[in-house]
Amino acid sequence: MVVLGIDPGYAIIGYGAVRYAQNRYTVLEYGAIRTEANTPFPARLAQIYDGMRELFRVCRPDAVAVEELFFNTNTTTGIAVAEARGVILLAAEQAGVRVAEYTPSQVKQAVVGYGRAEKAQVMELTRMLLGLREVPKPDDTADALAIAICHANSAGSRLGALYRQGR
Amino acid sequence: MVVLGIDPGYAIIGYGAVRYAQNRYTVLEYGAIRTEANTPFPARLAQIYDGMRELFRVCRPDAVAVEELFFNTNTTTGIAVAEARGVILLAAEQAGVRVAEYTPSQVKQAVVGYGRAEKAQVMELTRMLLGLREVPKPDDTADALAIAICHANSAGSRLGALYRQGR
Repeated sequence: MVVLGIDPGYAIIGYGAVRYAQNRYTVLEYGAIRTEANTPFPARLAQIYDGMRELFRVCRPDAVAVEELFFNTNTTTGIAVAEARGVILLAAEQAGVRVAEYTPSQVKQAVVGYGRAEKAQVMELTRMLLGLREVPKPDDTADALAIAICHANSAGSRLGALYRQGR
Repeated sequence: MVVLGIDPGYAIIGYGAVRYAQNRYTVLEYGAIRTEANTPFPARLAQIYDGMRELFRVCRPDAVAVEELFFNTNTTTGIAVAEARGVILLAAEQAGVRVAEYTPSQVKQAVVGYGRAEKAQVMELTRMLLGLREVPKPDDTADALAIAICHANSAGSRLGALYRQGR
């Protein structure tokens, strides 16, 4: 199966497509969609939408795995990230791809085996599992690959395929 | 000018299109897009997107005015509303329509002349300004019409046309 992992955002959207077969991971594509700070926000959303549509076209994933959002203090940024995330989910739906959501601790658990692992550990194990020489940059890309691994891992055991019901 | 007011949400999205000319308001369309609770969330977002695209096609607004979001306690609902709002802004951008945002108190100020007016007052004055027999139902629709009035009102004085710059 091919899983496209997405680290949602509005300035940088990390992505990573991973093929999982016979307990082995193969990286297909990874990188980040970026939008410019001096662009009106609705235009940034359109850029994200176009970028996602292109990703779905190129990667043809069986599933897309997206990090869940939690809001702490910086709510204004949080709202904008959620708005961008809505556009990402829309693009997935229109591409006919199932969406799974994972919390950061589920991702850590899946990659490191410990839900409270350090970020550096998650990145290093992501690198190793995917057979990469270096941890991909920016961090958003490495995070997206970790989310993809998490879903590939969980999908086998049917854990975590939380195709969100209407809330 | 024709202003399309939107009260963002994911279960009910109120809308109201108002023509403003020579200090008079004329209602063109109003109602609500609804999505079903037992539908997966990405599919609900696609329904909202399709509904918005259709609204832009039918109403051909010069501007769309959308309420700003603030999160209080119910953050999970808030995230879903923001995700839906992102899809609404995307549809506006793709239709080539400028987006203006207003806070609830700006809407109250514009309609009632007092930023801390009661909800019932806002609705009654919206009804009167638009020459309607009854306050439109659901409340989301009445709210959307109030937002449209707010923008029509503000656009003349060049206030509030906050075409959001990238945050």
